[in-house]
Amino acid sequence: MNRQQIIEQIRKKGTFLCVGLDTDIKKIPEHLLTEEDPMFAFNKAIIDATAPYCVAYKPNTAFYESRGTEGWQTLERTVNYLRTNYPDHFIIADAKRGDIGNTSSLYARAFFENMGVDAITVAPYMGFDSVKPFMDYEGKWVILLALTSNPGSRDFQFLTDMTGTRLFEHVLETAQKWGTTENLMFVVGATQGAMFAEVRRVAPRSFLLVPGVGAQGGSLEEVAKWGMTPECGLLVNSSRGIIYASSGTDFADAAAAEARKLRDHMTILLSTYGVI
Amino acid sequence: MNRQQIIEQIRKKGTFLCVGLDTDIKKIPEHLLTEEDPMFAFNKAIIDATAPYCVAYKPNTAFYESRGTEGWQTLERTVNYLRTNYPDHFIIADAKRGDIGNTSSLYARAFFENMGVDAITVAPYMGFDSVKPFMDYEGKWVILLALTSNPGSRDFQFLTDMTGTRLFEHVLETAQKWGTTENLMFVVGATQGAMFAEVRRVAPRSFLLVPGVGAQGGSLEEVAKWGMTPECGLLVNSSRGIIYASSGTDFADAAAAEARKLRDHMTILLSTYGVI
Repeated sequence: MNRQQIIEQIRKKGTFLCVGLDTDIKKIPEHLLTEEDPMFAFNKAIIDATAPYCVAYKPNTAFYESRGTEGWQTLERTVNYLRTNYPDHFIIADAKRGDIGNTSSLYARAFFENMGVDAITVAPYMGFDSVKPFMDYEGKWVILLALTSNPGSRDFQFLTDMTGTRLFEHVLETAQKWGTTENLMFVVGATQGAMFAEVRRVAPRSFLLVPGVGAQGGSLEEVAKWGMTPECGLLVNSSRGIIYASSGTDFADAAAAEARKLRDHMTILLSTYGVI
Repeated sequence: MNRQQIIEQIRKKGTFLCVGLDTDIKKIPEHLLTEEDPMFAFNKAIIDATAPYCVAYKPNTAFYESRGTEGWQTLERTVNYLRTNYPDHFIIADAKRGDIGNTSSLYARAFFENMGVDAITVAPYMGFDSVKPFMDYEGKWVILLALTSNPGSRDFQFLTDMTGTRLFEHVLETAQKWGTTENLMFVVGATQGAMFAEVRRVAPRSFLLVPGVGAQGGSLEEVAKWGMTPECGLLVNSSRGIIYASSGTDFADAAAAEARKLRDHMTILLSTYGVI
């Protein structure tokens, strides 16, 4: 999916919501455990219920890997289900990969060729040759960690050099020399609040993937206020707040209701800031 | 495996070699392709041939993930084979993972509980809570990226703050507050040459996992000269130079010969620097 298609979907549906498929076997409704592949049954129901209210899905690979080979099968099955039934939704593998050049190429092959996702999250620590192989795929995206939503983001990301530039700003600046606004997004946590303004100074047009709204405490209002561009430029992720809205048999309806609420709020914000 | 056991193995066998199982289906000998699981057949033969000359094995997960579910099966099978037949060898999952706290816990579960490796490589960018969950397992190790072997290591790892401290030094210093020399190692690339002296200033006793000898151009002599401690403190990895020493039916013998050569060299270095 290219940039223009993402923007069109956002405008058409009045939402920039990404639903995080952080599917934990220990948290899904009990009645699904008798299914052949309970995690897939859960994902399928969540997807069918929330698709009208979001433009993207983001399975986090950790949840699938923690189930070994079976989990990988579930992940492949989920991506395949999305690809087939919801071709207009953007699919992000939240994998936070990154290795030396020839090895990153293999991760790119795993996620872009075999699994067929649109985007993958990548960690920047190893620099250019660890990121570039993911950019060699037409129509695919790298989503590079810049400023993350967790407490540990304070440990290294704010390290300041002699010129007053912080590490996350270096990452934003440097990576834009490797990629373009057509194949490179950044992760900026919703918990970073006013830092969004600083991010926008360095990356005014880039799409940002924003985790941390909801369970982690970030505010959607604030993210839109500081981070939204005339083309929206945001994909705001919510995982737990949507997918675990209920642990009963009504889990899919409850997820839809939460996603709809966010969509409604997002439509207002898109309108307020002149995107639609 | 604990620190003392690793040191004992190194002294007993006169080697600090780690064999990297970067098993690429496109590079393994043709005659193996008729096997039910060609990558496992390759790994098994390489392991049996090289076990006397090394103390550790390091499968890089990218090579297995690039084969999807099948590849994960091969990885699990390989770790299982090692665990069962070579219980004194240290097993490193070279996965370069790292995510927010609750998600890193799932990666830890995947690799430590389910797969049963001894150690996992972790990327430091997300800080404390992304690393700590891997340290909560008794007898298991985090191997944190500090100074990597690839050209991209120059992009961010050498960023210098107001006090003259570089990012990789911050990582070394900060992470030692989270873990100990009993559960935390660092990745320092062999290509970094004299930088080893700087690493040793900040982390005098930590074990270092050293990739980049051989194909990537690092020198074993130099690594030992600057990096070796009275307890060795080094695990030097070689992947391609060993496992692809021959592409014929003699691949395992050729791998053994390369591993033996490195072992012989390592024995001399261990003796020169008074470890044995």
